[in-house]
Amino acid sequence: MKSDLAISQQTTLKPISVIAAQAGILADEVTSYGDTKAKLKFSLLKRAEAEAQGKLVVVTAITPTPLGEGKTVTTIGLAQGLQRIGTKVMACIRQPSMGPVFGVKGGAAGGGYSQVAPMEELNLHLSGDIHAVAAAHNLAAAAIDARLFHEQQLGNEFTAKTGLSRVDIDPNRIAWRRSVDMNDRALRRVTIGINRPGSSANGIERESGFDITAASELMAVLALAADLADLRQRLGKVVLAYNIDGKPVTAEDIQVAGAMAAVMRDAAQPTLMQTLEGVPTLVHAGPFANIAHGNSSIIADKMALGLADVVVTEGGFGSDMGFEKACNIKARAAGKSPDAGVVVATLRGLKANSGVYDLRPGQTLPQAIFEPDQHALEAGFANLQWHINNVKRYGIPVVVALNRFPQDSDAELQWLQQQVEAQGASVAISEAFSKGGEGAELLAQRVVEALAQPSEQSFQYLYDVEQCIEHKLLTMVEAGYGGAGIELSEQAKADILTLAKLGYSNLPLCMAKSPLSISHNPALKGVPRDFTVPISSLKLCAGSGFIYVLTGNVMTMPGLSATPAYLNIDIDADGNITGLDE
Amino acid sequence: MKSDLAISQQTTLKPISVIAAQAGILADEVTSYGDTKAKLKFSLLKRAEAEAQGKLVVVTAITPTPLGEGKTVTTIGLAQGLQRIGTKVMACIRQPSMGPVFGVKGGAAGGGYSQVAPMEELNLHLSGDIHAVAAAHNLAAAAIDARLFHEQQLGNEFTAKTGLSRVDIDPNRIAWRRSVDMNDRALRRVTIGINRPGSSANGIERESGFDITAASELMAVLALAADLADLRQRLGKVVLAYNIDGKPVTAEDIQVAGAMAAVMRDAAQPTLMQTLEGVPTLVHAGPFANIAHGNSSIIADKMALGLADVVVTEGGFGSDMGFEKACNIKARAAGKSPDAGVVVATLRGLKANSGVYDLRPGQTLPQAIFEPDQHALEAGFANLQWHINNVKRYGIPVVVALNRFPQDSDAELQWLQQQVEAQGASVAISEAFSKGGEGAELLAQRVVEALAQPSEQSFQYLYDVEQCIEHKLLTMVEAGYGGAGIELSEQAKADILTLAKLGYSNLPLCMAKSPLSISHNPALKGVPRDFTVPISSLKLCAGSGFIYVLTGNVMTMPGLSATPAYLNIDIDADGNITGLDE
Repeated sequence: MKSDLAISQQTTLKPISVIAAQAGILADEVTSYGDTKAKLKFSLLKRAEAEAQGKLVVVTAITPTPLGEGKTVTTIGLAQGLQRIGTKVMACIRQPSMGPVFGVKGGAAGGGYSQVAPMEELNLHLSGDIHAVAAAHNLAAAAIDARLFHEQQLGNEFTAKTGLSRVDIDPNRIAWRRSVDMNDRALRRVTIGINRPGSSANGIERESGFDITAASELMAVLALAADLADLRQRLGKVVLAYNIDGKPVTAEDIQVAGAMAAVMRDAAQPTLMQTLEGVPTLVHAGPFANIAHGNSSIIADKMALGLADVVVTEGGFGSDMGFEKACNIKARAAGKSPDAGVVVATLRGLKANSGVYDLRPGQTLPQAIFEPDQHALEAGFANLQWHINNVKRYGIPVVVALNRFPQDSDAELQWLQQQVEAQGASVAISEAFSKGGEGAELLAQRVVEALAQPSEQSFQYLYDVEQCIEHKLLTMVEAGYGGAGIELSEQAKADILTLAKLGYSNLPLCMAKSPLSISHNPALKGVPRDFTVPISSLKLCAGSGFIYVLTGNVMTMPGLSATPAYLNIDIDADGNITGLDE
Repeated sequence: MKSDLAISQQTTLKPISVIAAQAGILADEVTSYGDTKAKLKFSLLKRAEAEAQGKLVVVTAITPTPLGEGKTVTTIGLAQGLQRIGTKVMACIRQPSMGPVFGVKGGAAGGGYSQVAPMEELNLHLSGDIHAVAAAHNLAAAAIDARLFHEQQLGNEFTAKTGLSRVDIDPNRIAWRRSVDMNDRALRRVTIGINRPGSSANGIERESGFDITAASELMAVLALAADLADLRQRLGKVVLAYNIDGKPVTAEDIQVAGAMAAVMRDAAQPTLMQTLEGVPTLVHAGPFANIAHGNSSIIADKMALGLADVVVTEGGFGSDMGFEKACNIKARAAGKSPDAGVVVATLRGLKANSGVYDLRPGQTLPQAIFEPDQHALEAGFANLQWHINNVKRYGIPVVVALNRFPQDSDAELQWLQQQVEAQGASVAISEAFSKGGEGAELLAQRVVEALAQPSEQSFQYLYDVEQCIEHKLLTMVEAGYGGAGIELSEQAKADILTLAKLGYSNLPLCMAKSPLSISHNPALKGVPRDFTVPISSLKLCAGSGFIYVLTGNVMTMPGLSATPAYLNIDIDADGNITGLDE
């Protein structure tokens, strides 16, 4: 089979204006960026909200393995399959970060015959939204350090000289780090504002760091905003620091929120693209699901739900990660919960989750994982069961997509299908990678059936936001992950007290944890039990409207490996990009 | 008169496809980004190079003052004036950096009725080129630190485990800093790669810093590249560090240049916009003229010169800055020298250059500067004389543009005009700000006459690149600035030896110096004499093909003032940007 990039570059795409018209978007609701992508205006949002609303399908997966389960392939393939069986469908996905594009893999557009195209545009810049998020983030960072500096320099004369009120930032409690869309381990922890001896020109020296832009609170703000006015309000609420009395200093307090909104204005418009089979696809926002909330934007969903009968989207990593946040964070903010969940599983992925093999990061995978092994498959099946039940818990129907790889054993696939059906779940084998939408027609049929079936119960959240933070954390770990409890660090205890004192206890939780286990510990495969989750710190994200919870030592800035993906990337004499899928 | 932003927002612009057609650009040479901007493809570059070539006019100015001389206003006004008198004209300008937009002023699109529009798009992101430059820059930075880290971690096993040859970076000689398009003083000097005790996960701790993206060597590479293949070659030559034997480690050596080219591919295409009167304007690259080479791109010039009879561009700051670099750096790389120079002067600017007033940064300007003062004007005139002669030195005709402000005295303007004519220079009063192209018709006429006059001499560079570095530095200071000599720091002496040893002596110089004086010292107004320029260090920029020379303590990262421009910027309920011109 051809490479992903070759398939993408060799497919004749429709002009984006044709895709827009096909989706029911009016000509004056679109700003085309060339023939392949377009920004959608807010006039469409208003109109879409007044139209009949479609059904929202969230694609999730078993616990991820180094093999890749093909969640985006299945998301795009399902959308293409739905289109083939006559459903008016749109897909909504996140914009890939350039960090992983140059780091661990070359791109995140789906794969094979189920891709969003052109994949090189999706993976590099697209229409510039991630850069805009980083710019707004770094503007706020420069502003808070500059304000600290000038209030200190001008002292009692600050107000007289500037006409501004003092905010009295506590230099030891600046909460806002800086942001870059790159895997750059050297920026995880830095000292800034270092001066020459005898000078203070570079500001106040202090320790800080950079996070990848996918982890920026502003990325969450972009993804969770209802519209432009809500975006502006949320930017104002972002807490940049605390003052000497322990009160939050917001972006509004230092009058930088308006400029941040100006920087993010165009980014607030979703970008329309297409799949290889011409399904209209909205690409918008790109929070990671391990260190952020892991779902594409509410604005894009709202536009799509007003235009299509079924909207397919995905939450990052397993159902304990992006899907959990789709239900407990995104659905709350949107006022719209998922109508069905799809759990993607593979034979190899279940075997890798079985605990039978000794898998270590960076090591070559054992060949046995690709060959029939009933023992490992049975052991790994428990992980799929867990994720099926985790979706059902929210009161929505679940469909399992068995993403077939060429070497997969028919007998094993059949066994797995029977086991899933025995659990009372709907299931279909998907060949979306090798056959595109045709390979996902059966899956599409199962999803349509699931959406049509009368709901036995109504959607329910995992926890009530009005519970105290500790209670919510316990519910998350015990009911959400099946763990035995939590272990709060001294920092975490202090953070909980502070959040309560400031009146921010009643926010949902955004868990930062390893995606490689249902627990916090990537070494615990399958369905871990009796684990206690260490909570190292909690951070107020008042703009995005959640409490950010760090479990253990989760990195918010990835690094580049010794053989990073960028080694293979280049342009040819005609400017075509090469090596993006290697 | 209305504000710049109001004028820009209230002017009905032509669809960019109409502007493109009017400029002679074929439909398949354009990628429209909405109705207001478009990227121009490389097929146009090839065609333009084969067409009859237009004349290149470079707009420069007297030594800048806090008042603003209106160089961009005159550039855009002149282009509009030329169009009005029937000349086929295009303008080529730099893309404004967001640093100053949020820092000292709200935008850099010209002003009044001589603007590039829409000014809010020009000033914020535009088509994302500056972000792409920063991303490519920071990819290289992450790559060099990651390579240092992995070679150290894997030791003798590096090659066996990765298949890559060791480059043996000297951790104390990493030349590549990081880049952000923001005024952020706290990032001027930072320590990166700080680890937790007992861990090495964050890399190798070392001191580094961030420069504003306008000062990135990659911005110069973008501006100086002849085409996409040349861009790719230049990126490969960029020196990121030196190895333990003192040899340069390039982007090609660590195999990151291809990915950098992929990141910058679309940025290599100029963006077509329009002036308020519909003159086709190419916006491309944005190097500052004090800490970089200060001119828009060669690719844009080449496209415009193949399409128009006259192309108007500008060099940043006074003629000792951007114009000097237009002649000695850009013209050499382009193989095309300017055909005429325009020196912009104002009554107030000359008075501010007179030395009569005690002007201090941050202080309110004395009212007298805006009122008739023959003594100050006469004293300040010497500065204009110097800049007229500085343009003539290169062997090209000069036209002086007296940029009129509403309060200006007729008698003083007339006196000034006579003085300029007595010097044998052509002169016209320009009212481009208040009247647009109509106010610059006379100036346009003078420029057309200057271009038509038989050239008395041929273009000549200030120095021969084959001279040794010290000789070139002396020529720059003595002949270029009228100074008495140079004072080399120990670092500068060592840098010169290193450059010579590595075989890079024969490159032109890119001087980083204060723009506020013809000398290196902003306190020396008018026409300074008998000054000695301190040379603090020299840096090899092998990708852009020049030697970067730091004089004294020039900052490559601006800061935000106590009352920065962002305080006034916001969006309204319809998403219109407000306060960008305050």
